[in-house]
Amino acid sequence: MKLFHWMRKGSVTVPKGFYATGMYAGIKKSGKTDSCLIYSEAPCVAAATFTVNRAKAWPLLYSMQAISNPVHRAILANSGNANCFNGPGGEKAVEESLETLHHALDISRKKILLASTGVIGRPFPIDSFKKAIPEMVRMLSKQGDALAAEGIMTTDTVPKELAIEFRIGNKWVRLGGIAKGSGMAHPNMATMLCFITTDLKIRKSLLQSALREAVKKTFNRLSVDNDMSTNDTVFLLANGLAENESIEEKNAEYEKFLTILTAFCKEIGRKMVEDGEGVTKVCEIKVEKARNEKQAEAMARQVANSMLVKTMFTGADPNWGRVIGALGATQIPINWNQLEIYFDSLRIFGNGRGRMSGFQSLRKVLKKKFFTMTIVLNQGTAGVSFLTTDLTSKYVRINSSYTS
Amino acid sequence: MKLFHWMRKGSVTVPKGFYATGMYAGIKKSGKTDSCLIYSEAPCVAAATFTVNRAKAWPLLYSMQAISNPVHRAILANSGNANCFNGPGGEKAVEESLETLHHALDISRKKILLASTGVIGRPFPIDSFKKAIPEMVRMLSKQGDALAAEGIMTTDTVPKELAIEFRIGNKWVRLGGIAKGSGMAHPNMATMLCFITTDLKIRKSLLQSALREAVKKTFNRLSVDNDMSTNDTVFLLANGLAENESIEEKNAEYEKFLTILTAFCKEIGRKMVEDGEGVTKVCEIKVEKARNEKQAEAMARQVANSMLVKTMFTGADPNWGRVIGALGATQIPINWNQLEIYFDSLRIFGNGRGRMSGFQSLRKVLKKKFFTMTIVLNQGTAGVSFLTTDLTSKYVRINSSYTS
Repeated sequence: MKLFHWMRKGSVTVPKGFYATGMYAGIKKSGKTDSCLIYSEAPCVAAATFTVNRAKAWPLLYSMQAISNPVHRAILANSGNANCFNGPGGEKAVEESLETLHHALDISRKKILLASTGVIGRPFPIDSFKKAIPEMVRMLSKQGDALAAEGIMTTDTVPKELAIEFRIGNKWVRLGGIAKGSGMAHPNMATMLCFITTDLKIRKSLLQSALREAVKKTFNRLSVDNDMSTNDTVFLLANGLAENESIEEKNAEYEKFLTILTAFCKEIGRKMVEDGEGVTKVCEIKVEKARNEKQAEAMARQVANSMLVKTMFTGADPNWGRVIGALGATQIPINWNQLEIYFDSLRIFGNGRGRMSGFQSLRKVLKKKFFTMTIVLNQGTAGVSFLTTDLTSKYVRINSSYTS
Repeated sequence: MKLFHWMRKGSVTVPKGFYATGMYAGIKKSGKTDSCLIYSEAPCVAAATFTVNRAKAWPLLYSMQAISNPVHRAILANSGNANCFNGPGGEKAVEESLETLHHALDISRKKILLASTGVIGRPFPIDSFKKAIPEMVRMLSKQGDALAAEGIMTTDTVPKELAIEFRIGNKWVRLGGIAKGSGMAHPNMATMLCFITTDLKIRKSLLQSALREAVKKTFNRLSVDNDMSTNDTVFLLANGLAENESIEEKNAEYEKFLTILTAFCKEIGRKMVEDGEGVTKVCEIKVEKARNEKQAEAMARQVANSMLVKTMFTGADPNWGRVIGALGATQIPINWNQLEIYFDSLRIFGNGRGRMSGFQSLRKVLKKKFFTMTIVLNQGTAGVSFLTTDLTSKYVRINSSYTS
C-alpha cells in the first residue's frame, strides 16, 4: 500500500480549515501579485526553520521570536521587497503589518507569522501594503491557494503548489504547501519561502523536530547558486482538524509523518530547483558508501556548487575531471582506486581512472533534462542525495539586472 | 627611494643565467604552443607551493617529492593536458619526460621540476612530447621567455610575463615570472601555474618561507570562480648569480625581498584575474578593521565568490544587499550598526542601513573596469585585500564547451 497519494490540484487550502489568498499590494513595480495571506479557522501549532545567514530581514527577526508562541492562526507574506537592512522604517513596517492584520482578522498579534522576499535595502511600501491587508482578509477562501502561491513569487516562472493525503490511525490527513525558490537555493535553504499547512493533530515540539529533520534532508540539499539569503523561511502549521489521535511521542505514527513530510519537501524542492534561475537541467547527485553522512554531504555539496561542474552540464561537455577536482577540493580523504562514478547507469570512473574515450554515450546522458550522478566511495555505508542544476547565460542575465 | 622597478619587458630570462623556450609539442588540438622549458646554467635552490586539492595530477605528485632535493636546474611544463587521473600511462609519461630531459640537458633527474595544466583524464601524448624535449633544449635562449609564457596558456587570452629589478646589499637582483591563470582562480591558487626565477642568493628554507607567505597574501586571495584545480603549482628558482651576500636569516634583507616578492606576485595575480574567463571587470575587495585576519579573509572570500555579487557587477546593478547577504553567510558575528561599506569613495552602507536612493552614482562606479569595495567592520585592526571579478555569459560559454 502506498504511504500517501498526491492530490491532483490545490495546496495550502487542501487541509481542513485553512483559507488563503493573494493580491497586488503595490510592492512590485511589475504590478504582479505580491502579497499572500494564509489563515486557519482553528488554532494551529506551528514549526519553522529560518536562514542561518547572520544578516536577517525584519519580518524574519520578528517570526523567530513569534514562533515560540503556543498557537498561531495566520501567515502574512509579501514578495518584491525583502524588508531587510532598510533602517527603522522596516521594523516599523513589521509593527504596522501586525497591527493591521490583528484588527482585520480579530486575532491576537501573537498568532501571526510574517515573511518577506525580494530586494534587500529598499524602503518598504507599508502604506499600500496596509491597505491591502483588510482586502485580503475579505478575499480569504478555499480557492485562494493559487493566488497565495503567486503572491510569494520573485524570479520564479511558475508558482509551486503541492498537496497530499495520507492516513494517520483511522483518519485521513492532508498536507498542502506553496513555495518560492529560484536563485540562491544553496546550503541552508537559501532564497526560498515555503508555507505548509496540515490538519494533522500533533504536539508542537514534535512538529518542530519533524520539520527540522525534513528540511535538513531536502531544502538544505539543493544548489542553484552559492548564495544564502537573508529571508529564507519555512513555516508548517498544524490545526488538528483531521481529528486523528494526537501524535504525542516519537512513535510509529510520528515516523510515518516524518517520512511523508520529507517526501513532500523533497518534491517541493525538486520543483524549486527545476524552476531555478536559467536552469535547463537538473542533476541528482547521490553520494554512496561514504564513511559518514557529514562527509557524504560535504562532497555532494562541493560537486553541486562547482561552477565548472554546472557549466559542464550546460554544454553537455564530457569533462568529468571537474567532478574529481571538486571531490578533491573537499579535503576529505578519498581512496581514488575504490571510487566509482556513474552518470545514470554509465560508469565514467573506476580503478583510479576515468573514461578516456567513448564520450558520445556520456554526452547523451548530459543532454537529458534530468539525470543522476552517483558517486560511490566504497569507504563506508552512509549516503546522501542532493539536487543541483546547470549554470546558464540566462542565470547571468537574470541576476545582472535584478533591481534595474 | 622606490623599493624596486618594473622592467619594460621580459620575464623568466631577465635574471642572470636563466634560459627558456616554448613550442608546439603535439598536445593541443589547436596546434598552439603547448610546452615550456626553463633552465638555469647554475644550480638553483627552489621553492614551491602546490594545490591543496586532494586530487592531484601525476607531475604534481612527482614535483611535491622532487622539491625537497637540494638543488634544481630546470622546469618542464605543458598545457592542453593535465596528466591527471588518466591511469598508469600518466605516471609513465612523467617518468619518460624526466628521462628524456635528463639526457637532453645532461643533468640529474633530481634537478628537474614538472608541471602540467589542461584537461583532466585524457591520455597524455607522451610520444610527441618526448620528441619535442630535445628540440626545446636546442631552442633555449635569453629571448625564449615569451615562448615559455605561451607554452603554459590554456584559456588565457594573453600571456602573463613580468620582471623587476631591485637592490640587495650593494648588488642588483632581478626577479622574473610567467603565469597562466584564467578560470578556477579561487581560494587556494586554483588553476594557475606560475614560474618565477631570480638570481638572488638565499638559503633554500628562507626562499620557501618567503614564497609561502607571498602566495598566501596574493594568489590565495583571488576569485574568478569557486573551483580548485588538481594541478596548481608555483615554482620559484634562485640561482645566486647576482652575487649578493647570501640571505641566511630573517633579517632586513629578507624582509625587503619578501615585500618585493609579494608585490610581484600581487601584480601577476592582478594580470591573471584581469584575464579571467569572460571577465570584464575587476574589483578589489578590502576588508578593514576586522577582529583578526582569518575573519577578514573569510568575509572577503565569501563576498568575492558570491555569484550574486559577481552578477551584480556584470550588470552594474546597484543591488548592494547581496554584499550584506554574503557577509552574513560567513556566520561571523558582525556589528551591523558599525559596519560601513564603500564602493570606491562612495559610502553605500552605514548606521545599520544601506543607500536607498541615489543609485546613479553607485551605478557609475560599478560600470568602471576596475573599482574597490571597502568593507570597514570597526571591530578590530586586521585587514586583507582580495581580488574578484564579474561573472559573465562568456564565462558560461567558455566553460560549457571546454573539452568539446
